[in-house]
Amino acid sequence: MALTVVGSIAFDSVRTPFGERDRMLGGSAVHFALAASFFTEVRVVGPVGDDFGDDHLAVLSERAIDTDDIEHVPGKTFFWRGHYDHDMNIAHTDDTELNVFADFEPKLSPASCEAQMLFLGNIQPELQRRVRAQSSASFAALDSMNLWIDTARDSLVAAIAEVDCLLLNDAELRMLTGRPNLSQAARATMEMGPSVVVAKRGEYGAVLFTAEATFAIPGLPLEDVRDPTGAGDSFAGGFLGYLDGVRTGGEHDERALRRAMAYGSVLASFNVEDFGTERVQRLTESELAERYDEFRRLTTFEEAPVSSRP
Amino acid sequence: MALTVVGSIAFDSVRTPFGERDRMLGGSAVHFALAASFFTEVRVVGPVGDDFGDDHLAVLSERAIDTDDIEHVPGKTFFWRGHYDHDMNIAHTDDTELNVFADFEPKLSPASCEAQMLFLGNIQPELQRRVRAQSSASFAALDSMNLWIDTARDSLVAAIAEVDCLLLNDAELRMLTGRPNLSQAARATMEMGPSVVVAKRGEYGAVLFTAEATFAIPGLPLEDVRDPTGAGDSFAGGFLGYLDGVRTGGEHDERALRRAMAYGSVLASFNVEDFGTERVQRLTESELAERYDEFRRLTTFEEAPVSSRP
Repeated sequence: MALTVVGSIAFDSVRTPFGERDRMLGGSAVHFALAASFFTEVRVVGPVGDDFGDDHLAVLSERAIDTDDIEHVPGKTFFWRGHYDHDMNIAHTDDTELNVFADFEPKLSPASCEAQMLFLGNIQPELQRRVRAQSSASFAALDSMNLWIDTARDSLVAAIAEVDCLLLNDAELRMLTGRPNLSQAARATMEMGPSVVVAKRGEYGAVLFTAEATFAIPGLPLEDVRDPTGAGDSFAGGFLGYLDGVRTGGEHDERALRRAMAYGSVLASFNVEDFGTERVQRLTESELAERYDEFRRLTTFEEAPVSSRP
Repeated sequence: MALTVVGSIAFDSVRTPFGERDRMLGGSAVHFALAASFFTEVRVVGPVGDDFGDDHLAVLSERAIDTDDIEHVPGKTFFWRGHYDHDMNIAHTDDTELNVFADFEPKLSPASCEAQMLFLGNIQPELQRRVRAQSSASFAALDSMNLWIDTARDSLVAAIAEVDCLLLNDAELRMLTGRPNLSQAARATMEMGPSVVVAKRGEYGAVLFTAEATFAIPGLPLEDVRDPTGAGDSFAGGFLGYLDGVRTGGEHDERALRRAMAYGSVLASFNVEDFGTERVQRLTESELAERYDEFRRLTTFEEAPVSSRP
């Protein structure tokens, strides 16, 4: 088992009502890889600049994430600056510098090509397609965002047709398909190619759509949310990492997908408890198991015969 | 077992992207009573005008709802006109005529006073308090809205202190307490009096807070949502109706509360499938049981040992 992720490796400067951090390690590939590393072997593909030091690499390698395909190129690492007000469902972008990402041409090593699972983090859809074309993964998943729906819709639709699973915010699924109803939007998305569609809903949780069934999991109401940056990628990392870890053959059965949704929710819930990667970096396996049980307690209710009136 | 509800009995004119209806039967007490009638004996208290006919009363009495405390007074029945655009989480009010509700002075019959459970639908908080004072119910629940938080906050806080359970939209809980974090808002609300707090989240479901635990249930992703008017009251009716139906002594244990949340969700999910009371009026017990099972399938996932890396 192995899981390759392509996406941004970044420095993030973030301000929320609960504090701020300057140039901390971030990016979709980083958040994803840390989350997935609890379940499977992860290989990260992406470019970094001269300002990316060994201490940053160590955050990944300490979790035994393979960093051989992280390409060091002259220039500066991708940079994002943003802030959140009291509604932490909404990220306000103040600055984005593509830097070394501007000329990124992904080249996967043989080991990364051969990983049986692939995650295409939120980057330009044509780049996602070029990575997909190199990979021999039997299960590929893709994340994207409103920017690409607006500016590169045809490429994005082509990229979606080439993957097995799409993860997207619910508002973006509606935007992609032009259907205000989420179930209809998910079905229309499945007609584009993917057999598995996950609608992410921020603090409200996530919904899984397959041909067979629909599964919904609420978010865990947390007393203390400090920084939601990377929560969606942590969700994807928990989700796909768990699937890759339990995988037998090419099959993902319904029950495994549901447990994977719960692990995705678990990782996202930890991610938001502190800035950037801070919480997931210090996460332990026992905390992981305990929070999974907490999600079970949060959502479990018993069968009940209709106690109808006499 | 018996459940008294006080609230509006109304005519609603509603337009949504899926159609419109003129002067259909509505109001918080009506939606609540129809939903609760599947589980327990329900008594409705409230005023109607000369324009309220036997056919309207029949909608209630056909579900064996007791209408003896519906007071016929000269004048016109409460009237609401509103519409929804594509985001059906938001109701736009175009007209409200209090009519006979303007001078409503609730007087509960002995039978309504003695019901062991009481629901104070969304009306002026001082009216809710006067009803609570007359009732000997051992469990009382209250719904309200942003209007009263804005214009009658002190009365509302006093009314909340006199009930066991508060049901409110999540945004209104935040507004009531000034806490942007939902868990903190719910805890602050419990400090006002109620031991049970339910945050309603529209299509995203609902969250239950008690001293012991938190329970969250997602909304059922429906292909066909025609009119959300009354969904919150149908939720409350399913929730409290079920609780009253299974109640033994004054106790509401955690497990019963969870099942009640599911029945509330079931009734709300039917309510939105057609205009006004149309869907719940033709609802059958077997449909009810089937949808409860559907919510179980929607939310169930298995235990999973952390499949950690070798």
